Amino acid sequence: MRLSQMLFVTLREDPAEAEIPSHKLLLRAGYMRRIASGVYAYLPLLWRVLNKISAIVREEMDATGAQECLLPQLQPSDLWKESGRWDTYTKAEGIMFSLIDRRDQEMGLGPTHEEVITAIARDMIRSYRQLPLNLYQIQTKFRDEIRSRFGLMRGREFIMKDAYSFHADEDSLKATYQDMYTAYTNILQRCGLKFRAVDADSGAIGGSGSTEFMVLADAGEDEVLYTEDGKYAANVEKAISLPADAVPSTFTKFEKLDTPNTPTIESLSQLLKCSPTQIVKNVLYQVVYDTGRTVLVLVNIRGDQDVNDTKLQNELSKLAGNYGASAVIALDVPDEDMQGKWAAKPLPLGYIAPDLADDYIQSGLKDVEPKFLRMVDQTAVDLQNFVTGSNESGYHTVGGNWDQDYPKPSLVVDVREAQAGDRATHDPTQTLKTARGIEIGHIFQLGQKYSQAMGATYTAESGEEVPLWMGCYGVGVSRLAQSAVEQSHDKNGIIWPVAISPYHAIVVVPNVSDEAQMTAAEQLYTDLNAAGVETLLDDRNERAGVKFKDSELVGIPFRIVTGRSLKSGKVEVVQRATGESQEIEIADVVPTLQQWVADAL
Amino acid sequence: MRLSQMLFVTLREDPAEAEIPSHKLLLRAGYMRRIASGVYAYLPLLWRVLNKISAIVREEMDATGAQECLLPQLQPSDLWKESGRWDTYTKAEGIMFSLIDRRDQEMGLGPTHEEVITAIARDMIRSYRQLPLNLYQIQTKFRDEIRSRFGLMRGREFIMKDAYSFHADEDSLKATYQDMYTAYTNILQRCGLKFRAVDADSGAIGGSGSTEFMVLADAGEDEVLYTEDGKYAANVEKAISLPADAVPSTFTKFEKLDTPNTPTIESLSQLLKCSPTQIVKNVLYQVVYDTGRTVLVLVNIRGDQDVNDTKLQNELSKLAGNYGASAVIALDVPDEDMQGKWAAKPLPLGYIAPDLADDYIQSGLKDVEPKFLRMVDQTAVDLQNFVTGSNESGYHTVGGNWDQDYPKPSLVVDVREAQAGDRATHDPTQTLKTARGIEIGHIFQLGQKYSQAMGATYTAESGEEVPLWMGCYGVGVSRLAQSAVEQSHDKNGIIWPVAISPYHAIVVVPNVSDEAQMTAAEQLYTDLNAAGVETLLDDRNERAGVKFKDSELVGIPFRIVTGRSLKSGKVEVVQRATGESQEIEIADVVPTLQQWVADAL
Repeated sequence: MRLSQMLFVTLREDPAEAEIPSHKLLLRAGYMRRIASGVYAYLPLLWRVLNKISAIVREEMDATGAQECLLPQLQPSDLWKESGRWDTYTKAEGIMFSLIDRRDQEMGLGPTHEEVITAIARDMIRSYRQLPLNLYQIQTKFRDEIRSRFGLMRGREFIMKDAYSFHADEDSLKATYQDMYTAYTNILQRCGLKFRAVDADSGAIGGSGSTEFMVLADAGEDEVLYTEDGKYAANVEKAISLPADAVPSTFTKFEKLDTPNTPTIESLSQLLKCSPTQIVKNVLYQVVYDTGRTVLVLVNIRGDQDVNDTKLQNELSKLAGNYGASAVIALDVPDEDMQGKWAAKPLPLGYIAPDLADDYIQSGLKDVEPKFLRMVDQTAVDLQNFVTGSNESGYHTVGGNWDQDYPKPSLVVDVREAQAGDRATHDPTQTLKTARGIEIGHIFQLGQKYSQAMGATYTAESGEEVPLWMGCYGVGVSRLAQSAVEQSHDKNGIIWPVAISPYHAIVVVPNVSDEAQMTAAEQLYTDLNAAGVETLLDDRNERAGVKFKDSELVGIPFRIVTGRSLKSGKVEVVQRATGESQEIEIADVVPTLQQWVADAL
Repeated sequence: MRLSQMLFVTLREDPAEAEIPSHKLLLRAGYMRRIASGVYAYLPLLWRVLNKISAIVREEMDATGAQECLLPQLQPSDLWKESGRWDTYTKAEGIMFSLIDRRDQEMGLGPTHEEVITAIARDMIRSYRQLPLNLYQIQTKFRDEIRSRFGLMRGREFIMKDAYSFHADEDSLKATYQDMYTAYTNILQRCGLKFRAVDADSGAIGGSGSTEFMVLADAGEDEVLYTEDGKYAANVEKAISLPADAVPSTFTKFEKLDTPNTPTIESLSQLLKCSPTQIVKNVLYQVVYDTGRTVLVLVNIRGDQDVNDTKLQNELSKLAGNYGASAVIALDVPDEDMQGKWAAKPLPLGYIAPDLADDYIQSGLKDVEPKFLRMVDQTAVDLQNFVTGSNESGYHTVGGNWDQDYPKPSLVVDVREAQAGDRATHDPTQTLKTARGIEIGHIFQLGQKYSQAMGATYTAESGEEVPLWMGCYGVGVSRLAQSAVEQSHDKNGIIWPVAISPYHAIVVVPNVSDEAQMTAAEQLYTDLNAAGVETLLDDRNERAGVKFKDSELVGIPFRIVTGRSLKSGKVEVVQRATGESQEIEIADVVPTLQQWVADAL
């Protein structure tokens, strides 16, 4: 393609709408334009990148025997009501766009396709002889994000590859899950990305196990904890670790002490000259279930530890029993509005005891059960002679013990957040390291969650009707494109991995009025494209400096300049990633570039 | 692909939901499943067909220099308000799905992309040096059809290729329009379809000229009129012709006659022994503008002619002045509900005079202007001494003349429907023939309609700011797939054109327990695929008869059977289109099939 004939517009300034480097660069280099919040037009250069990623995804999926299809984006609410997710997705979490059609039917815009594919499986899969099956699609998906941001990272309209597998039993599911793990590893390697596969929380999708594929980048929204022996990596939402050992408490007598101005663990441990590991911290959460019901939850946890919201949410969902579909909102401190409605008097924030006293609860709520739930984290349940709040501002108790001084909650949970520096559970000599990641892929063992809810069964060899075993597997195609930019750029622009660059090479003519330059460039442009090296020709009537800057901004891996060295039968070839420049005989350009491209793929 | 590992399910019975052959066959052969009204899942076989069509479309578009991109499906209402189409599309015609997002913003689901692309052009195109440009995408579109039906023919979610070109002047637009005409011709030829390019009405898209590409099939929703000299073809909505000459009237005296039981032209002309060409027929329409205003329209037309709704709609839109955005609903006879609301007394249906008398109009409406519009078709304006209604049931007048007996409407229009048998305007010795067609492509010269409304200008060489000239060009990709089936099938199933068949060949093993049969089949399956002949292997443990039936239903062009003739080193090869069967040496199968496929592409 000739730049003079392309929709090729670059910007000198960073657009105000963009916060992170990849978002700025994709806008400045003319890859995309914003049409609405979280909604982008993918311009021709970006479309080529997305196609290359899709082609790699397709090849790796096809190699596993998966079959491509295309499912509807418009989804009838009935199917989502069968699975029990309609309210969660449209109301509680509100991430599914929904509409009413001209027949007054409710429809959702697919953020994911478990319901649709399960309905198809229910219709078409009758016998164990049809199993296993793995169906996938590459498609635009929709999520009405509360905070759409960072361009393609968290858009409201984005491209996904999603696959759904069906199995006669769990072993078959696990085998396909492993195939998908391998396929995803291949996809990310072939795209030229640095990444990590990590244990993950399954969230609203549900199921028994899941792995996320994280592209490593500082702007990643997720925190990954891993060990350097390569044996453990997990999203912080899911990560486990051994907490530091608690320092034995020296407070052997239970008593209430005057501890003014110590609402934080730090100030309290300083005043009492004790270790935070000797303190039981009591954190109050306001939880909104997707049924609309609000419950207060008091979590007791060791003073040096924090509650992980996702783990807490999962514990609460388990209690709700609605196969994980429950949504909760957790607040570190009760908001003022709630205090008025719920609490009878101002709460002793910073001084709450492990059992929040009954007289804090608004009388009208006393008969609502449960008015609040208590749970104790594993780190706090083992403590003895601990320091904790007294339910009275300015006072703490020391030397406390469960069941003696405070009733021990019957709910003992693991909701602590693992931290960098913690010891690993698989090998306590390893400590957890931290990294930022962008979630690009997520694979799930769904089990029979959807097939059971929607009655998708098959006839086993024994003649028995059995709910299908299912897995699902997603890759964010458009997000992957931007994550590559986030991982690979410099101050001058994008540095595309060759495999997903919109073009491999660009021939730059410094001066288009120079006939020799143009002739050489045209010939190279034609020959390179004929040889399979996808090449742009910058034949615009612009200054050489502008063209060089643009080629760096756009990030094409190899730049060929038909400049001064033409006199000696050579052209300059510059590698974008290293900045390395060399002069090459014109006759050698095609084979050299062919080799470079082949080496990089 | 092995059928034993595919999602391959055929049905013996026609599904109740399907009316036309192609719809039945695509469901029966397992190409798709209905998820909601007008919303289908495209299963792996259909997805291959759609990909092949898309690949042909892409090649032909790329060959013209058009650039592929992908625009959002979610479109902010603001853009559609700028063009003036929001109300038309969401309310009056109601074909755009719309929703409110979590920020209370109105969004539409794109049925077409003039607004979005014009917004991008406004942002990115600054100079004549960037022109011309042609951008296209292949994408799922949405239309909330009143009557979605016939499967992929009129779905609510469907795949389109849409292209939008931008130009400095009308000549450049016309050149690209011509390129698109050629590209569309190539696309349909390469897909192996019988089709006709016809003059068309531009409808709600607007603009100055348009051509439709019609795939010919009996179940087509559109009527095409054409001449056998190949010089004229048009959609009946747009077609022009010379009406038959009127027979001079012999009623020289204006008088009212008792004509009981003659509410139709046929009964009236029989009673009066006159030609229908001597009668002025008066047809009443109820018209709803997209502003919600209802107007009554009385059209006077010659008795042997019919009013074409689209032509009438265009005339009314012109009057509304809202650059064609007006939508009208025409009723041949006023409905009962309207009679009560509008008419003061029962209308003399079948006996209405050219000027419907004032006393029929509900008194409360008398001051609403215009309470009704009158227009006379060109065929009626030239009549003299005509027969017509009297506004009194059971009576007609004869010998009437305009301005003498009836006021001639100031609005003289051409709203008559051209008919098969009419003389052609370009050559009156040619008569129009009729055919049914399925609209697969439509190309438009939009002119400056959208660029003017949305302020998308460029700086001309003179320095002047000029609104961009635009064209737009659509192909229904999913509709094309079904139209191929509609055009090419027999009682046993689909007969795919080779170019868009999901696979070229299928190797059928009559008896999978026969080792020789399986070995030969496996070898052919491997060799054919390696040679680029896309081949299925029917290795299911089913009776041979079931497999043969399935292969015919699914419509794969070439079937290879590793049956009895194996003993003599041969296999049976059957051509789906002709049913022709021959025995071929095993060694010759690959080169023969390669040749057949190459010949057919």
